[in-house]
Amino acid sequence: MQESDPLVTEIGELEAIKIATAGFRKQPSTLVGPGDDAAVVTLAGSDVVITTDTMIEGHDFRLDMSKPFDLGFKAVATNVSDVAAMGATPIAIVVSLAVTKETRLSWLEEFARGLQEGCDQLAPKAAIVGGDLATADQVLIAVTAHGELDGRKPILRSGARPGDQIAVCGTLGKAAAGLDLMLHEDQSLARSYPELVDVQLRPMPPMETLLDGLEGITSMLDISDGLSTDAARVSKASSVAMHIESAKLFGFAAVLEQAAQSMKSRDGVDRDPMHWVLNGGEDHGFLVTLQPGVTAKGFKIIGEVREGSGVFLDGAPLQPGGWDSVTG
Amino acid sequence: MQESDPLVTEIGELEAIKIATAGFRKQPSTLVGPGDDAAVVTLAGSDVVITTDTMIEGHDFRLDMSKPFDLGFKAVATNVSDVAAMGATPIAIVVSLAVTKETRLSWLEEFARGLQEGCDQLAPKAAIVGGDLATADQVLIAVTAHGELDGRKPILRSGARPGDQIAVCGTLGKAAAGLDLMLHEDQSLARSYPELVDVQLRPMPPMETLLDGLEGITSMLDISDGLSTDAARVSKASSVAMHIESAKLFGFAAVLEQAAQSMKSRDGVDRDPMHWVLNGGEDHGFLVTLQPGVTAKGFKIIGEVREGSGVFLDGAPLQPGGWDSVTG
Repeated sequence: MQESDPLVTEIGELEAIKIATAGFRKQPSTLVGPGDDAAVVTLAGSDVVITTDTMIEGHDFRLDMSKPFDLGFKAVATNVSDVAAMGATPIAIVVSLAVTKETRLSWLEEFARGLQEGCDQLAPKAAIVGGDLATADQVLIAVTAHGELDGRKPILRSGARPGDQIAVCGTLGKAAAGLDLMLHEDQSLARSYPELVDVQLRPMPPMETLLDGLEGITSMLDISDGLSTDAARVSKASSVAMHIESAKLFGFAAVLEQAAQSMKSRDGVDRDPMHWVLNGGEDHGFLVTLQPGVTAKGFKIIGEVREGSGVFLDGAPLQPGGWDSVTG
Repeated sequence: MQESDPLVTEIGELEAIKIATAGFRKQPSTLVGPGDDAAVVTLAGSDVVITTDTMIEGHDFRLDMSKPFDLGFKAVATNVSDVAAMGATPIAIVVSLAVTKETRLSWLEEFARGLQEGCDQLAPKAAIVGGDLATADQVLIAVTAHGELDGRKPILRSGARPGDQIAVCGTLGKAAAGLDLMLHEDQSLARSYPELVDVQLRPMPPMETLLDGLEGITSMLDISDGLSTDAARVSKASSVAMHIESAKLFGFAAVLEQAAQSMKSRDGVDRDPMHWVLNGGEDHGFLVTLQPGVTAKGFKIIGEVREGSGVFLDGAPLQPGGWDSVTG
């Protein structure tokens, strides 16, 4: 490393923050930005949506696989998708970051650049309004994102009703396939499928799809832990059965088929792309239920809400196969 | 450990959260609490104050010295004091917690109890509205707290003007003295001064002092990193000189004198209690500037704002001697 790229611990919290955050843009809603005891944000309306999510080195990411820019981008993406899944518009983000004694200032600057780029691409009304920088034995990223409802009611998981259509927007299974490619012992595989790897590293929740209006959406959530797991959450919260048709998911699986074949050609292991589609998290698409007859641009109908409980694939019970951040 | 006290990693994120948060109380302002993609909170007014702070095992606390209840309490205390220092009322808190593979459910439950007790004692209008539970190699606590201004303007660090009085409320130096007692090789010392140790473990920001009104307060901040360091922040933000009189601080030092003497009797080292008063952080009292002539109940006048820059003690420059969370 060059002399001109000091350790973060050498230059201190305030100076490091000052340098790294120089590119952050304020928004009109930011009344007080970083630098005081707290930030102050003004809302359209008086209801604020708040969500928080943590990414921990060695558990949620590896520094040899994720660049700091990617981590900043992903930290924003995973949180603004939760805000959007409430039917709200992201407006303010605070970031608690812990770096290690080995972290260079350039790493911090790239991370901050990823945060701002995540806002620019996914949440153009949002600003990074505050944060906290500390040191730990591993890199930790805790983000809290805030959204405004502007007089609308939040869209909860509990609003699905029998007769509603089940629909998704965004990709399904790409992030999981990308992760398996990155973890494969043949490192050339990941380079052959950059699109899948990119979804894992820098997920792109389809925020623009929600801009066309939320009319007729009865429930919504961010698919962060896999369709099977997240559909079970809607089922439980709404006290309904979620019936999904595998035929409607074939398109999502088809685009993953070639990656599965490539991996098999290296290690002889059969992989069913449908497993990625059903159980892979981190694409951060949206799972919604729609009132009967409603069509929503950008959404793909994958099934129907019925009376009962649980999640079903072609009529057979589908077990949640996704991710629990504590048991792993 | 008993069979009935499972590891958090054994029972999974959702179940652990459900058990640990059973005692959390909702507030009327909490429209949507834990369990959806995000929480929704309604404000008196449309301005929301947001602050975030991180506590990391081995850096900010040690598990052999802090009980989980204390850590939960302190995590709330340090954040609601930042909200209060903006002139706002804390209403909503989200908590990102990472536990280790060794963390028991009982630890998590006590931590959650400390969070709720912190709200009850320090921020009775606040609720824990959401959070995130993960695993890491060390325990990490990232809290984001939110406050409402109810139509008032935020009180910033930048509002001090020449002629203003400098005042503090709360204790000064007790938390630092308590920490030195806890770290002393003679473990009996800490037991002899439970009041000082308690301020370190469970700081009590004097929230009630601010309830009498904020009239005439021109700047305010939470003394988290020591009077010398935090006064320098006001000086810089307001472009003024902060002149503090040591005679006004003798009372704060006097109550620490006996602890200093006790430590000297064990190790022969001289300790100046005034060092704790000037540079010790973590008491989380408030440093304010007041318009000339204004008297504020519960505040002690310690000096005067003048034209210029920097912090002075009895006319001599006072170097910031407090805490930087990155360089330590």
